[in-house]
Amino acid sequence: MTRSIPEVSIAVIGAGGVGSVFLQQLAWVAKNKTSHSLRLVYVAIIDKALYHVDYASIDIESAVPTLEEKGGPLPTIPQTIEYLTGAPGKVIVVDNTSSQAVAEAYPSFLSKGFSVVTPNKKAFSGSWKLWEAIFAGEGTAGSMVYHECSVGAALPIISTLKELIATGDEITRIEGVFSGTMSYLFNNFAPTQGTGGKWSDEVKKAMQLGYTEPDPRDDLNGLDVARKITILARLAGLPIKSATAFSVQSLIPKELESVKSGEEFLQRLPEFDSQMNQHKEAAEKSGKVVRFIGSVDVTTKQLKVGLEAFDKSHPIASLKGSDNIISFYTKRYGDLPLIVQGAGAGGPVTAMGVLGDLLKVLTRIA
Amino acid sequence: MTRSIPEVSIAVIGAGGVGSVFLQQLAWVAKNKTSHSLRLVYVAIIDKALYHVDYASIDIESAVPTLEEKGGPLPTIPQTIEYLTGAPGKVIVVDNTSSQAVAEAYPSFLSKGFSVVTPNKKAFSGSWKLWEAIFAGEGTAGSMVYHECSVGAALPIISTLKELIATGDEITRIEGVFSGTMSYLFNNFAPTQGTGGKWSDEVKKAMQLGYTEPDPRDDLNGLDVARKITILARLAGLPIKSATAFSVQSLIPKELESVKSGEEFLQRLPEFDSQMNQHKEAAEKSGKVVRFIGSVDVTTKQLKVGLEAFDKSHPIASLKGSDNIISFYTKRYGDLPLIVQGAGAGGPVTAMGVLGDLLKVLTRIA
Repeated sequence: MTRSIPEVSIAVIGAGGVGSVFLQQLAWVAKNKTSHSLRLVYVAIIDKALYHVDYASIDIESAVPTLEEKGGPLPTIPQTIEYLTGAPGKVIVVDNTSSQAVAEAYPSFLSKGFSVVTPNKKAFSGSWKLWEAIFAGEGTAGSMVYHECSVGAALPIISTLKELIATGDEITRIEGVFSGTMSYLFNNFAPTQGTGGKWSDEVKKAMQLGYTEPDPRDDLNGLDVARKITILARLAGLPIKSATAFSVQSLIPKELESVKSGEEFLQRLPEFDSQMNQHKEAAEKSGKVVRFIGSVDVTTKQLKVGLEAFDKSHPIASLKGSDNIISFYTKRYGDLPLIVQGAGAGGPVTAMGVLGDLLKVLTRIA
Repeated sequence: MTRSIPEVSIAVIGAGGVGSVFLQQLAWVAKNKTSHSLRLVYVAIIDKALYHVDYASIDIESAVPTLEEKGGPLPTIPQTIEYLTGAPGKVIVVDNTSSQAVAEAYPSFLSKGFSVVTPNKKAFSGSWKLWEAIFAGEGTAGSMVYHECSVGAALPIISTLKELIATGDEITRIEGVFSGTMSYLFNNFAPTQGTGGKWSDEVKKAMQLGYTEPDPRDDLNGLDVARKITILARLAGLPIKSATAFSVQSLIPKELESVKSGEEFLQRLPEFDSQMNQHKEAAEKSGKVVRFIGSVDVTTKQLKVGLEAFDKSHPIASLKGSDNIISFYTKRYGDLPLIVQGAGAGGPVTAMGVLGDLLKVLTRIA
C-alpha cells in the first residue's frame, strides 16, 4: 500500500508587491515538490475575491490575472471562514496584506483549525489582547502560526529567537537596524568612510529609489522599527502592551509633523538639516557614526528606538546598502552576539520568507 | 476526550564536551516542555552503554554519572538497532560523537524509522556513497535527519540554505570563515587595526586557550573547513565526491608535515613565520587583510579552501574573537549576501543546536 499524498487547501489574501511574487514562487513549489498536494481555493485583493463553491483548484500561476478578470465581490471574514471550513484537507491562510482587519481575524482562523502564515506586522505588534488571542487559538485542531517576515523579511530572525528560547538559552539583549529605509539613509548620511550627503538629500534619494513609504514620514517616525522590536520583545517574554508603549525617537522635526503632504515635508526638510548634522558631529567627535536602531534589553525590560553612536568597526556601523542587521546577545553566546544580516525588505525575499513558513507548516502536516 | 501526549524514545551516543551539556539541556526541556513525553532509553560513551531491556526511562540529568558507574559493555550497532526497534513511540538517535563508525550506521537507523540528529561532520562530508545512503534512508516510516551543527554549531546555516533552495532561490556563491581556530588566528595575526602578533605565537596562544585540536596541525591542514564546505556544496546540489576531492591550502609548512608530535611542530614553527608574513604583507600592500576562508562557487562548481585577501571594511575582515561568518549570495538577495555570524564551536552552543534539531523532529511527530 502506498501512502496517499496529503491534500492541503491554501487561501491567499493580498496579491500586491509581496502577494503576487508569492504566488509565482508557490506555483514553482507546487510543480517541483510532491510531498503534498496543494490546492489554491481562495485568492483575494482589497475589493475582489476568486473562489469556487466546489473548491475547484485555482491555477496558481495565473491566479492574479484571473482574479482581476473574473473575481467576484469580497466576502466578509465570517463568510470566508464558512467557505474555508469545507475545503479539502488542512487549510492554510496566507495573509500577504498589512491589513489590521485581516490580522484581527487570525484568532477565528486558528480556532477553526486553519494555520496562518503572514508577513503582516500588525497582528503581532498591535494590542496585547490580539497577541494573546492569536496564541490562545494556535494549536486548535493542529493549527499553526508562522510570521518570520514580520521582522526582517526572510532573514532567519524569529525562527532563531524562538529556538534560542525553546532550548533554554537566556536572551539578554537584542539590537539592530530593523528598517531598510533607515539603514540606507544612515549608511549614506554618515558613512564610515567619506563625509556623506546632506540629510534632506538622502531622504529624497531614498524616496526616488522606492525605499520609503509614499509619505517618508511613515518611515521617519520610527513606528515601523517600534513594531518590529515589540514583536521580538514579546517573543522574548516581555508583555509589551503595544508598539507605542515605550519611548520612540521620531526623526520628523516637530515643525513638520503636521504639514499636509509628503511633498511639502520634503520641500521644507532642508531647513532642519543642521539638527541631523548635530547628531552626526556629536558621534564623529568620539570617532563614531550615528545609526537609527531598535533594541530590547530583556534583563531590564527596556525597549528603545532611536539614534545611537557606534564605533566604525562595529557590525552595525559597517552595514551596507539598505540591509538589516540583528544581534542576539545570549548567555550561551557570551560576549559576541549571534548576528543575522541582509536584505530585510522587498517583494522576492519577503515572498520567499512567507513561502518558507508555509513549507514549515507542510512538514508538520502528515 | 483529551489527546494523548505522544511518547518519544531517545538514544544518546556520546557524552563528552557536547554530549554531556546536551543531556543537561535536554533535562531542562523534558521538564519545561510538555508537548511530548521524552524517554531516554539509551546512553553510550566509547566503551560503555546504559539501557534497560524493559526500556525503563533513564533519568536524564544524572545519566552521565549513572552511565559511568553502572554502564555495561557497549553493544554492537546491530544489537543497538535491535534494542531500539522495540522502544516505545518514535525513536530519535542523537549522535554527539565524531565517530566514523556511528556515522556509517545512519542509513540503518533511518531505514528502521529512527530519526537522526547530530553535529557529526563525518557522516555528511565522507564518501558520496554514504551521503546517498543516508538520504535514501531518510523518510522510511517518517524518519528524519537533522545536522545543523555539522557546520557552524547552532548558527542557522544549514536550515537557511535548505530553505533558500526549497523556496526556489538560486544560490550563486557561499563564502565564509568556517573554523573558530582559523578565525582567532587571523583576527589576531592580521587585525584590521594594529600590527598583530607573530604567527607562531598566535598558534601557541590559540592552543593554550583550548581553541585548537590537541595537535594544532589538525586545524591548520584545512580539512575541517573542507568538510564543512563539502556539506554546504552537496546541499546546494553539487555531487562532491569527498572533502579531499578539491584543492585545499594547508598552513602546515611542508618541512613540518611529518614531524612526530604537536610539541615538536610548535617548537619549530617560528622558523616559518616569514612565510606567513609574506601573505600578510602582500594583502597589506593593497590595503587588505589576509583571512583563511572556504568558498563554494555554485555556478562554476568550484570549491576553495585557503588564504584570501579582504578589504578591511568587509564583514569577513572585521570578524572578532573566534567567530564564524557565512555569506550566502543568491539571486533573490542580489549584490549583498545574507550573512550569519557568531560562535561556531563550543559545548553549550553546539549542544543547543543539536537540541534545536531534536525539537524540530518533535514538532513533526504528532
